[in-house]
Amino acid sequence: MKNIMVSLSKRQSINQIPTEMVERKGTGHPDTICDAASEELSRALSRYYLEHYGRIYHHNVDKAVLVGGRVEVEFGGGRLLEPIYLLIVGRATMELMSGKKIERIPVGSLTLDSTQQWIKNNMRFLDPSKHIVVDSKIRSGSIDLQAVFDESEMAPLANDTSFGTAFAPLTETEQLVLETERLLNSKQFKQKLPEVGEDIKVMASRLENEIRLTIAVAMIASLIPDKDHYRNIHEEVRNQVADLVVKTTPKNVSIDINTGDNPEKDSYYLTLTGTSAEHGDDGQVGRGNRTTGLITPYRPQSLEAACGKNPINHTGKLLNVAAQIIAKRIDAEIHPIEANVYLLSQIGQPITEPQLANVELILENEAQFNVAKNDVEAIIEEELDSLPSLWEGILNDYYTLF
Amino acid sequence: MKNIMVSLSKRQSINQIPTEMVERKGTGHPDTICDAASEELSRALSRYYLEHYGRIYHHNVDKAVLVGGRVEVEFGGGRLLEPIYLLIVGRATMELMSGKKIERIPVGSLTLDSTQQWIKNNMRFLDPSKHIVVDSKIRSGSIDLQAVFDESEMAPLANDTSFGTAFAPLTETEQLVLETERLLNSKQFKQKLPEVGEDIKVMASRLENEIRLTIAVAMIASLIPDKDHYRNIHEEVRNQVADLVVKTTPKNVSIDINTGDNPEKDSYYLTLTGTSAEHGDDGQVGRGNRTTGLITPYRPQSLEAACGKNPINHTGKLLNVAAQIIAKRIDAEIHPIEANVYLLSQIGQPITEPQLANVELILENEAQFNVAKNDVEAIIEEELDSLPSLWEGILNDYYTLF
Amino acid sequence: MKNIMVSLSKRQSINQIPTEMVERKGTGHPDTICDAASEELSRALSRYYLEHYGRIYHHNVDKAVLVGGRVEVEFGGGRLLEPIYLLIVGRATMELMSGKKIERIPVGSLTLDSTQQWIKNNMRFLDPSKHIVVDSKIRSGSIDLQAVFDESEMAPLANDTSFGTAFAPLTETEQLVLETERLLNSKQFKQKLPEVGEDIKVMASRLENEIRLTIAVAMIASLIPDKDHYRNIHEEVRNQVADLVVKTTPKNVSIDINTGDNPEKDSYYLTLTGTSAEHGDDGQVGRGNRTTGLITPYRPQSLEAACGKNPINHTGKLLNVAAQIIAKRIDAEIHPIEANVYLLSQIGQPITEPQLANVELILENEAQFNVAKNDVEAIIEEELDSLPSLWEGILNDYYTLF
Amino acid sequence: MKNIMVSLSKRQSINQIPTEMVERKGTGHPDTICDAASEELSRALSRYYLEHYGRIYHHNVDKAVLVGGRVEVEFGGGRLLEPIYLLIVGRATMELMSGKKIERIPVGSLTLDSTQQWIKNNMRFLDPSKHIVVDSKIRSGSIDLQAVFDESEMAPLANDTSFGTAFAPLTETEQLVLETERLLNSKQFKQKLPEVGEDIKVMASRLENEIRLTIAVAMIASLIPDKDHYRNIHEEVRNQVADLVVKTTPKNVSIDINTGDNPEKDSYYLTLTGTSAEHGDDGQVGRGNRTTGLITPYRPQSLEAACGKNPINHTGKLLNVAAQIIAKRIDAEIHPIEANVYLLSQIGQPITEPQLANVELILENEAQFNVAKNDVEAIIEEELDSLPSLWEGILNDYYTLF
Repeated sequence: MKNIMVSLSKRQSINQIPTEMVERKGTGHPDTICDAASEELSRALSRYYLEHYGRIYHHNVDKAVLVGGRVEVEFGGGRLLEPIYLLIVGRATMELMSGKKIERIPVGSLTLDSTQQWIKNNMRFLDPSKHIVVDSKIRSGSIDLQAVFDESEMAPLANDTSFGTAFAPLTETEQLVLETERLLNSKQFKQKLPEVGEDIKVMASRLENEIRLTIAVAMIASLIPDKDHYRNIHEEVRNQVADLVVKTTPKNVSIDINTGDNPEKDSYYLTLTGTSAEHGDDGQVGRGNRTTGLITPYRPQSLEAACGKNPINHTGKLLNVAAQIIAKRIDAEIHPIEANVYLLSQIGQPITEPQLANVELILENEAQFNVAKNDVEAIIEEELDSLPSLWEGILNDYYTLF
Repeated sequence: MKNIMVSLSKRQSINQIPTEMVERKGTGHPDTICDAASEELSRALSRYYLEHYGRIYHHNVDKAVLVGGRVEVEFGGGRLLEPIYLLIVGRATMELMSGKKIERIPVGSLTLDSTQQWIKNNMRFLDPSKHIVVDSKIRSGSIDLQAVFDESEMAPLANDTSFGTAFAPLTETEQLVLETERLLNSKQFKQKLPEVGEDIKVMASRLENEIRLTIAVAMIASLIPDKDHYRNIHEEVRNQVADLVVKTTPKNVSIDINTGDNPEKDSYYLTLTGTSAEHGDDGQVGRGNRTTGLITPYRPQSLEAACGKNPINHTGKLLNVAAQIIAKRIDAEIHPIEANVYLLSQIGQPITEPQLANVELILENEAQFNVAKNDVEAIIEEELDSLPSLWEGILNDYYTLF
Repeated sequence: MKNIMVSLSKRQSINQIPTEMVERKGTGHPDTICDAASEELSRALSRYYLEHYGRIYHHNVDKAVLVGGRVEVEFGGGRLLEPIYLLIVGRATMELMSGKKIERIPVGSLTLDSTQQWIKNNMRFLDPSKHIVVDSKIRSGSIDLQAVFDESEMAPLANDTSFGTAFAPLTETEQLVLETERLLNSKQFKQKLPEVGEDIKVMASRLENEIRLTIAVAMIASLIPDKDHYRNIHEEVRNQVADLVVKTTPKNVSIDINTGDNPEKDSYYLTLTGTSAEHGDDGQVGRGNRTTGLITPYRPQSLEAACGKNPINHTGKLLNVAAQIIAKRIDAEIHPIEANVYLLSQIGQPITEPQLANVELILENEAQFNVAKNDVEAIIEEELDSLPSLWEGILNDYYTLF
Repeated sequence: MKNIMVSLSKRQSINQIPTEMVERKGTGHPDTICDAASEELSRALSRYYLEHYGRIYHHNVDKAVLVGGRVEVEFGGGRLLEPIYLLIVGRATMELMSGKKIERIPVGSLTLDSTQQWIKNNMRFLDPSKHIVVDSKIRSGSIDLQAVFDESEMAPLANDTSFGTAFAPLTETEQLVLETERLLNSKQFKQKLPEVGEDIKVMASRLENEIRLTIAVAMIASLIPDKDHYRNIHEEVRNQVADLVVKTTPKNVSIDINTGDNPEKDSYYLTLTGTSAEHGDDGQVGRGNRTTGLITPYRPQSLEAACGKNPINHTGKLLNVAAQIIAKRIDAEIHPIEANVYLLSQIGQPITEPQLANVELILENEAQFNVAKNDVEAIIEEELDSLPSLWEGILNDYYTLF
């Protein structure tokens, strides 16, 4: 019982409508740091359970709050006044029986290690032992949910009724937003322009054929001795993005970088650590990018936080990842103008049997719908059937979660 | 420069497409409690600033995390093992000059009082001094943002580039979800059926003319002596919702209540306090309902948390409320089949001058578009111009925020 | 093997030496609040274990830290800016087997309740739900210590090597300090002079026959409309203490009250809640009065915190209470000029078998020593033998712990 | 007005009485870690204020609580389950005017850095970024106290009425306790026997000429592969201490090491990090050694925590250090059998003018008292006059604080 429904949409595709709005919060954004910390902990727990007990046990660590620190920065450097504080919250299986022995899972230690490791790997100037205090309140799991979780030999049972959504292909505006951030946070780019910090927020609005791209880039104060240097970096970022624009879209694109700067007041977007979390910007899990990597109000969007949920039966995570996989396969195999994927789980039922699995297609040639419908149904069915092993790809980092 | 764009959409209305998915998290849901706590604090701060200094000062308290408690419940009652822990996070103006005297704002005290007051007013069985520990980490605001905030004599300047979205009218499915929760959490209903707790989650999926309504209702254990009583309440809730269904839609509606229950295992959705936060369910701000009161993946959705942001220049709040007002006025005055509103602010520019203000209309008679366009433009313009006084309506609780 | 040693001291009694210094921190002092919160929690746990399982289980909650709040006060009233924050720390047995069922102990709930109850009973103007946030970090106990704890059918085994000390009788200076605080915090006194808050610190120094009594009294701002009223209360307190002085000692006693006041700067010791914890004064467990009720640098003193330790095998608690009992009995039965009691436990040995139990006696007539020695040895032996049931008296509040 | 009182004591010296009890908590004891963290923060703040503003500003960080972690250890190694949590609490001057500019003091950053640095310098196996979460709640100081603090051009005014005590010379028992810990925690010893961790607690009781020395030594599990190795280390520690005993005292000394061990149950005092804080042992400031480096119930003892208080006007710190200096000078210059020093400050009066400064002397030849008295008075006067510059020696680590 998969309740699959493939429908032909007669509406205009998003490319045909005159407006679009798209956003991406980059690696170092406070919300992204929360997403990453939650997800890294879920993976660390999953790997630990797997390695020691052969299966992944119940956990849900999809809540965290980051309290921004306080710094003083100026051209040439700065100093930390108050460290960032990150509180990771959730549930986990804390104890397991091994034979007749109760064994304890090192949840607190995994939390600290996984967060620090992610920061080390992703934030060049944020020192995980100096700039951030990582605290946690993780309690042992609710017994009821563990029951749902444990009894399955077959497909796990959905922990909740929740949505998963996705769409494909990306519009040029969407591509531009995604790739701008990916470019500016790429290793190659950082080697060329190390002055560019990791907290990069890209926003685009399209009005007909005019795209306005607004980029906020946290600059690394210690690498920028003065205004001239800042202006050069600013210009260089613009040039690099302009190159990307040319490759991505024929539309007219205006590029605004750090529009909050106010040279008259000597106010520039300088940071010590590469993230605005260092000074007053707080964060939370699930408030940033969807599993598409984007925030897209003109597009189907689930409000579920994919990060931090367990990859076995938490449909708020699984269905968003699966929707993304389905959308991409439909795009690659069927080439519709647009495909929108909507999945809805049913609590207590196998995750492979959603309450509703709907794909809307916009096709160039509507006559193809009957054929396409069959193909899409097959893709959905296949991917739903694969849900019980989706955790492997998640642990191997095959999918974008934020 | 309001960058208004009214467009005629040729797509099917949501009523014409074969599927829909809609959700509402009720008053007592852990995410809703976080939303409410943040918003109540913002209002308490706003009122305090107004009363003492004649204007609202910078604050942003749009982050909070709730760590679920632990209880033991059974038919007839239960007991708290571990209280809920709620940490409210943000920034506020902590000190102000009055003449030559520095005066301190009682931020900590307002936090505790406003949260406890909301709980007292909204949760009959959650004792704010016994069942929940309310903590806070609210630091003084970032100086840069305060600058943006303070300098305006005219319209305040947008604090960020952020989205506001809304749509109207509601579909029958959407109405049903919204009104089901409103009914079950109404005073009259609680008088009749006090056994029904405040944590009510309503989810609907529509497939053509079939609506499946899934309702999770936290029952009050102390008022329910046994299974029979539980079954009766369960049945009575179904009946009441069935009555509502009849008034709301001619479609076929199946009603599932507490599908997570497992009578064979004697497992029922019983609570001590009326919220799942008491046992293992954590929460955050901005993870629940949009300013429409709903979660609607088939509809335009902003990911901004409206709650807790200041009502003066935080466009993540203002534009979502304004979009809602605009959508409702268009619905009432123009009667389109559908109106979708998308607003996008520009950081550092007056809040009255967004980067883009787009309304998509679906009209029965497309010939009316030119007239409608003018009317809608006028509505948008009027409401954007009213943004600098929108805070008054927010403080007076005229608008739904979650 | 009790290792009892009764010795005759040839030194001058404390009354003969020319100087003395004595202090008592009253009910509302931040350190006393911490002591009380820890001890109340230990008792609540003990009662819970007893009631449900017939015996007291391992716990140790002898650490807490209080972070002072912030207020604004003036004659006639005041307001809270930031609540007090109290973090109670320790270990407790969290789960117990009842038949084949694991049962959970409501540690978090007991913590909140017992602290709030103590505040309600002891602090008239400190509202436990408005003025203080009570948080806790109580983890499940160390397995090793539980082992020591659990295996005893006979006398419990000492958890540590630790000291207990006491002395008797009190000097006049000591009596004066103790009774001054007891008087000012008595119910009768509060009825007459409700303006006198609970945070009362009494300090005395004696130089030959001159005693200087320094009293700091937190006054209740809301009950004191102006300076005149304050002065009257100040005078009334002095008069009452002067009456007590006359009854207690023929020595010359000067009385200084609120010497920190600075009328020229309009600075008075006014409080909203009756405790300096409301504004900047932090606290901890074990930093205030010993089990004598006093701080007495000229006298034997243990540094162990008696509060919060479990009353079964924590010798840091038991030996201090027992030393006090022994000293009082010796005083009542033998009438020495002075008796000093020193007990030292041996980790892992029965609590009834200390490493050393020493009493020093100063006698008027040294010839009586041999008789006295036998009597004292008997008293010590008896009281050591009673240690396994000392918890009953502790739970029934027979003994001063702070 | 120094209120100096030198008195001749006719009592027996501590060496003449038949019993003694002495304790020292070593470097790695949870209470000592709290003492160190508080004191290091006070010094870091003091240095910062001095360097940037030429004087030390008000602060008081003499409260902290450590929540023990959780580990699993066995011969050969172990692993951390839950990190230690350390909360440092207090007051500090957070902002200062430099010209017309408000400058912020990096209190949070200094807290983290100074604690981590101390750990690195003192605990070989406790990784400050992996094994411990260092949090803080440090608020800006009470305005009233700052007033007392700021107005002095002359000697600072005492912040409180508080005691300082000391004595000299040390008895052999005291020396033995102090030096045993100092030996086992010396660099040379760690090079020879790295297996010996830093958490060393030494307790001695003397009965006539028999001293019983009880030593608890946290062993480093990773360096001890098996029981045999443990036994060898155990034996080697005993031998080294036995050598020390021979040099220190002719009395009979029994040495008990890790008496909590239970070989039958395979229970040994093994640690991952060298401190019992890793597993269940909590800590606080001011609960360990006095400024003598010892806990000595038979001796004068102040209950003030010297650590963390500011070194300018906090008499709870200054008078304890000064008492220690005075006692040592008297010992060196006058050679009494015993000298006991008691100082008591008067709140609001210059720190150089205590309420009472008493020294009790026990002299071999009482005829010398008159001469000695004059000398001692001169020493007291000199040292009291030096109090306003005592902070320099404290910052330079000339004095033992714990």
